[in-house]
Order: sequence, then C-alpha cells, then structure tokens
Amino acid sequence: MKRIFVFVFVLFAVLGLQGADNPKYVFLFIGDGMSTPQRMIADEFSRKLGNGQLAINTLPAHATTRTCSSNSLVTDSAAAATAIACGERTNNGRIGMSADGSRKLVSLAEVARDKGKKVGIVTSVTINHATPAGFYGHRKSRSEMYAIGLDLIASKFDYFGGGGAAKHDDKKSPLYKGDIYDLAAKAGYKVIGTRKELLALKPGDGKVLAYGVRDTILPFAIDRKDQSVATLAEFTAKGIEMLQDNPKGFFMMVEGGAIDYAGHSNDAATNLREVLAFDDAVKVALKFMEKHPNETLIVVTGDHETGGMTMGFAGTGYALYMDRLMNQTCSAANFIAQFQKMKKENPDLKFDDVKKFLSDSFGFKFEVKTPEILAHEKNPKKYPMKGRDPMILTAQEVKQLETAFKDKKTTALGTAAKKIISAKAGVGWTSGAHTGLPVLTTSKGVKSEIFTGFINNYDIAIKMKSIL
Amino acid sequence: MKRIFVFVFVLFAVLGLQGADNPKYVFLFIGDGMSTPQRMIADEFSRKLGNGQLAINTLPAHATTRTCSSNSLVTDSAAAATAIACGERTNNGRIGMSADGSRKLVSLAEVARDKGKKVGIVTSVTINHATPAGFYGHRKSRSEMYAIGLDLIASKFDYFGGGGAAKHDDKKSPLYKGDIYDLAAKAGYKVIGTRKELLALKPGDGKVLAYGVRDTILPFAIDRKDQSVATLAEFTAKGIEMLQDNPKGFFMMVEGGAIDYAGHSNDAATNLREVLAFDDAVKVALKFMEKHPNETLIVVTGDHETGGMTMGFAGTGYALYMDRLMNQTCSAANFIAQFQKMKKENPDLKFDDVKKFLSDSFGFKFEVKTPEILAHEKNPKKYPMKGRDPMILTAQEVKQLETAFKDKKTTALGTAAKKIISAKAGVGWTSGAHTGLPVLTTSKGVKSEIFTGFINNYDIAIKMKSIL
Repeated sequence: MKRIFVFVFVLFAVLGLQGADNPKYVFLFIGDGMSTPQRMIADEFSRKLGNGQLAINTLPAHATTRTCSSNSLVTDSAAAATAIACGERTNNGRIGMSADGSRKLVSLAEVARDKGKKVGIVTSVTINHATPAGFYGHRKSRSEMYAIGLDLIASKFDYFGGGGAAKHDDKKSPLYKGDIYDLAAKAGYKVIGTRKELLALKPGDGKVLAYGVRDTILPFAIDRKDQSVATLAEFTAKGIEMLQDNPKGFFMMVEGGAIDYAGHSNDAATNLREVLAFDDAVKVALKFMEKHPNETLIVVTGDHETGGMTMGFAGTGYALYMDRLMNQTCSAANFIAQFQKMKKENPDLKFDDVKKFLSDSFGFKFEVKTPEILAHEKNPKKYPMKGRDPMILTAQEVKQLETAFKDKKTTALGTAAKKIISAKAGVGWTSGAHTGLPVLTTSKGVKSEIFTGFINNYDIAIKMKSIL
Repeated sequence: MKRIFVFVFVLFAVLGLQGADNPKYVFLFIGDGMSTPQRMIADEFSRKLGNGQLAINTLPAHATTRTCSSNSLVTDSAAAATAIACGERTNNGRIGMSADGSRKLVSLAEVARDKGKKVGIVTSVTINHATPAGFYGHRKSRSEMYAIGLDLIASKFDYFGGGGAAKHDDKKSPLYKGDIYDLAAKAGYKVIGTRKELLALKPGDGKVLAYGVRDTILPFAIDRKDQSVATLAEFTAKGIEMLQDNPKGFFMMVEGGAIDYAGHSNDAATNLREVLAFDDAVKVALKFMEKHPNETLIVVTGDHETGGMTMGFAGTGYALYMDRLMNQTCSAANFIAQFQKMKKENPDLKFDDVKKFLSDSFGFKFEVKTPEILAHEKNPKKYPMKGRDPMILTAQEVKQLETAFKDKKTTALGTAAKKIISAKAGVGWTSGAHTGLPVLTTSKGVKSEIFTGFINNYDIAIKMKSIL
C-alpha cells in the first residue's frame, strides 16, 4: 500500500514537473525602446514616488534578448516587431515580410487566430505603427501606413485599442478605397472614439477598433491632465474583458510605444512616466493571472534600446537623483509646443518672461545670487554648499537656457531644459537613435521557463508559436 | 515487474531533478566594470575578430543583478566586492566590513576555507585592490592597502595570482612591520615573480603568491607585446592545477579588474580586449568543467557598469562598427605615456611629427584632401562618398587632434584620439565613473539554477555559501 502511495505521489510529481498544458491566455507586452536601463531607472523612479518596484521587474523568468536585424546591429521597430511577431530576422523597415521583401511571414497572432484564440492588439502609439503592425501587417515598408491599415482590417483580429490610425484617409495611397475607419466599420468593426464608449463596451459587442485620439498617439502619461482619453491600462483591461469570452482563450499584444518617442527625444521624465504607464498595463494582466494562474502566460520584453540611456552622468559622479525628475510636469515636446505658441503670440518675448514657465515645467529655480552661491558656483569643491536645493540653477545653466532661448530654432529651449534636468538626475544619453544593447525579457506563468538564457528576439515568436 | 521498473525509473528521474550534491569545484568570475554593454560589445568585437561568441555569454542560467551599495545607487568596487563576497550591503569604500564599519563580515572564500576547500584569488589588477580584497580583507577603507596586504597573508588562502601588491612596503602605514612580500614568504608562501616560475609550479609546492608585475597591475591585454608576464588565463590555469589537489575541491575567484580601468578612461578597444582576456580565463574553467561536469559550478558576474558605455552613438545613427576598434594597437594610457616621453625628448615637437604615431596607434589616416573629400566633408548627406575608408579623418577630426596636441595637458591628445575612435565605432560613453545599471550574472553547472531572475549582488554570496 505504502509503495503504491509513493509511486502515485512520485508519478504526479514527475508529471507536474514535465509541464502543464499550454497557456489559454497569452500576453505579450513590448516596451518600445525599453531595455534594461529604462526598466531599472523607471524602477528607481517608481520607488522614489513611493510606488515600489515595477511589476515588470518582478517576473521570475529572465532572458537576455539580442535585437539586431538582418541588415544592422541596431534594429528599427519594424524589423524588431517582425522578428518578435513572426520568428524571422528581417531588414530594418519591413513589416511581416522577409529580408528581401519577397515573402510574407506568418505572425504568432495570426497563428493564434487560426487556432481559435481571440486576438487583441493594444498600443500607446498609432495602431498601424511598426510594432503593432508586425503582428498583422505584411508590407515591404513601415511607411505604407494606409496599406497597413488595410491589413489591420483584413486580419479580422477581435480587438484593436490605443492610438489612432495614422494616415487613415491617405488619398495618395495607390491602394486608397476610403477612410480606414469607414472601411473597418463596413467590415463589421465597432469603431470607438471616446473613453466613455470604451468603458461601456460589453463582451458580445463584436470586433472593436477603439482609439484614444483619432489621428495620433495617446497623450504622453506625463501630459495627461484629464480623464477624457483612456489609458494604456484601460485599453488593456477592456481588451481582456472583450477577449476572455472564448473557450480557446486569447492572445494579446500590448505595446508601450511612446517610451521610444521619449527616448529619441532624450526626455528622461517623460520616458520614465511612459514605462510606469506600461507597467500599469502589465499589472492589469497580472491581476487577471491571479484568477487564472494555471492558464496564463505573461511575457514582457522590449524591441530595442533607445537613446543610449544610462544610469550615470559625468556631472553627478557616483550618485543618482531620480527624484529630481519628479519636478518635470510636462513632456519636452509639450513644453516646446507651448513655447512656440507663446513666441507666436508675443514676438517680443523676453527670457525673463519664460522663467516662470520653465520653473513650472521643470522645477528649475532661478534665485538671486548671494555671495555664498556665487562662491560655490565659482569653485564648488572649495565651497560645497551642502544642502543647497539642487533645482536652483547654476549661473552656467541659466546661461545655457538663455542662449537656447535666443536660438533661432524654437525647439532649442526645450532641448536645453531636458538636458539640464537629465544631468541633474544623473541620467546620461549617447544617441537620438536606437542602440544595439540587448533587451531584457521577463515572464511569468505557464511555460515561462522556456523564455530564459540568451535568446534572439525572433525566438520569442518561435517559442510562443510552439505553445499556442 | 513492469510497474516496479516504471517506479524505479520515475524515482530516479525525480531524484535527478531534485538536484545533485553541492559542487566540489566553484568558480566565481567577476568582470570589474562589466555589465551587459561591455559583455555584448565585446561579443560583437570577438565575432568581428573571427573568434565567435564569448564563452561568458554561452552560460545558460541568467540573473539580472542589482549593484547598489548601502549609501549610493552607484556602488564602488569595494562595497560591491564586499556584497558579492560576504552577502551584505555595505557603504562605498568598505572592505569586508558592515556599513557602519563596526562589524567584520565573513566572506564565502573564508567559509570555503573553513569547510576544507582550497581557495584561490586571481586578478588582473593589484592583488590587494578592492575586488580581491573583498574576499579576504576586513578594513574600513579600501585605501588601507598595506593593511589589506596583511589580511591577505592572514587569510591563509592557498593561491594568489595576478597583479602585484600595491604599497607592499608602505612604511607610512601604522601597521607597518615589513614588506608584504617578505612577510608572505615568512608565513610560508612561495612568492613568485616571473611567468617562468609560475609555469614551473607543481601541486605540492604549497601556498603561492604569484605576481605578474611587482608593484602594479598586469599589462593591458592590448599592450601585451611579449610573453614575459603571464596572462589572466595562465594565472587561472595554474590556480586550478594547484588547488585541484584536494579531496574537498576548491573555491576560486578570478577578477577581470582592468576592464574597469579602461571603462573609467572611456577607452573602448582597451576595454573590449580586457573583456576578451577575462573570457579566455573563463574558457580555462569551462575546459576544466568538461572533465568534471557533475562537480563544477561556474558563475560569471560583474560588480557594476563603468563609463555609461552604450552600443550606439549619435554620429553613427542605426549602425555600429566594432571592427574599427581593431585599428587601435595600444591603450590610450600607453599612448599618452609614449607621447609624454616624445614631448619631453623634443619640446619643439610639431603636430606633423605625431601623425604617424597616431596612425600606428589608432589606425587614423591623414589624407590629402581631394575636391571630392572636401565636398563630402562640407555636406556629407549630399556627397555621401560611399565606400570611403572610414578611418580617414575628417577635417573636423584632424582639427580636434591638432587642438588637443597644442593643449597644455599632455593627456589631451590621447583623450581626443580615443573619443574619435569610439565615435567611429558607434560606442557611446556618458561618464568617467561607475553607473547604476544592473549587471548580468550567467552561470553553468551544478546548482546554477539558483542564480536566476532578479537578484541583488549580495545574493551571490548568500547562495554560494548555501552550497559550499
């Protein structure tokens, strides 16, 4: 008797170890332009905000993921999305096509659809942008936005949410046959343009194309001042609700696309707030997983690093001050737009007139210079002025801003301001483009153990296809 | 019968999965200043050299490893070594002591020694430098080099190899009682100062203190022109030979310490060559593991990132050119020393006189400017000059070098040269100090599965102690 008991126990243990069934619910989260620096700096920023560790950094399985494309060590988002979605390296610029542009590739989202899973695609940038497009589009170039819009409709996926469709009424496209939104509606999609409508959606409402802003990306998280547009987390939560109603479950891709935008712009606070918004979306999936622990897989990756972002800057030595980035209250892009408006309204604008605006936007403090401050600025080592508010601008920083203010380019002031605040926080940047740093893939749940070690970005598709 | 067979099979399978014994031979490799950027850029560099992927990047278990110290997000090597060796976070500067400096910590090397393992400590920098010191030293400050030398002797570890002992005859130390080398010899150490003596060592020769250069670090790999000094890999191989002769096996720490030196200096080629030399040492351990697959654990980590090194630079956009770094034939430090000697010997030195030296050292080409080249330099977008040798300096680069040549600081020319070659390769830097980027820990062999996921640097010591 005892022997049989042991036998049964051991057998179950082995079966348990050999792995459960494939996951019914599969989430793939992609932070565009999010590699380890972005994840870790945002983690620190989150802690400073009192919100603790990021959810994306709690997932137990780890893989270091190479990102290079067929024709460059530094991938673009199109080649990266194609690799992650379809399982094959391609040239920069291609969407769901082979490197030479001759062959359509099959995405894991299409495999999921064909196997009876519902499919959702969510992003904070435009819905026909490179990363989401990699999951349903098949075009030689990412710039064929209208054509990619047609692919979106042809995919018959169940749920699209997030940013609007770029160039949705591009009459210059050789394939033009009407506005993408109208065509989607004709094809049976419920087209939704407000947060109120989105929140009112119910399972059974059919296929959905829901956008936050009709022609463009969702507002940056840092610029979000009201509740009129749904967040990435809300688009994700509604997606789950709409897709869950299916015996074979779902596959859902959620992109934090605007992380990349802020990376290109070297706008640290905006970048980190986007990572946090992305993390909020992952938290929604983790909450879902709590209810379906034996049926869910969550994989979080990035498509490449953007900006050459580092956790250390020459000026701050061995210290970092992420908390200083909390002083920034709007994106640099938003600041620049507002400044251009001010300039237009008042061509005689003086530098003194924008000091308050700079203070409100970046937390900079312009102070009357006491002899003590002047001595410190002349020789900081000799006169360390410990405890001085670091947001008080040095004479040099004020000069930088004033020079930028006078620059012909009306973007210069915003550029100078974001450089100064990055330097104050200890965040460094080496590029306005992508870099070749591998990204980190973390995962949790059913079959997450296969996403470990050194992998290539295209392995994500191969592995996911194998368990769909 | 069949049932019993299945039972036995299953039982063995379960026991197999539950893990073998603890490893008899434990290797801990630490790349000082080596995080993911250094590992991946060196990987690419190695491929360009025709040597394929780095061994350190083939180890299957991965952990993303936080490095912060008790008093800063950006650790120094002393606090990092203490955490990795002893299992507790401490303040920057401390060696084997608690954050407040009051309590001696116990290192995993000491635990290994007390459990009957032989212990070896190998490094490419000085043997009483912060990282090796973390494994045997107990001092409030890493700057107490002589005192740390005394700790080295007191440790009774079996094998020390690599760089010399810094300040080994520091008569200013309040603890001074003779030259460290003499004291080591008196304490029973065989003190070895040449490669020939090292290679002649045989198991049974007793405890060893073997240095490459008496007072300082091993020559940079890039500067190594002859075979008079043993390499890090040779010190590692000899260590294995000397330590293996023990029924309870050994623990061995090998540091690629000079990676950090080249990182501080933002000297890309020198940095990568050091990572390659470190990788060669890991290959020695992997070869040993082939013979002892069920008894060996190899863990490779870094202590922090240095330099804010990135795989992308504004000037090269979406491309990287690691092969261009092959043109560099000596370290920037070596170049500077040679240049200073030239200046001293000939105070009237002209810029034209150093052009050949610059070409020989960095592969730069100074060319007579054809109208085609001039047009390209004026407007590279309009006149792309495809196929132009990228090592030909632009007018701007020549000017940078010439200005640096004329600078009062005799280090300026070397600094300008390494900046130019980094930019040509697409390698960016944001700091001359360490940064807060986590490091990658990879491992292979017995119990390597415990070194996975997000961990802290001090977890390495805790985990290693648990399996010693």
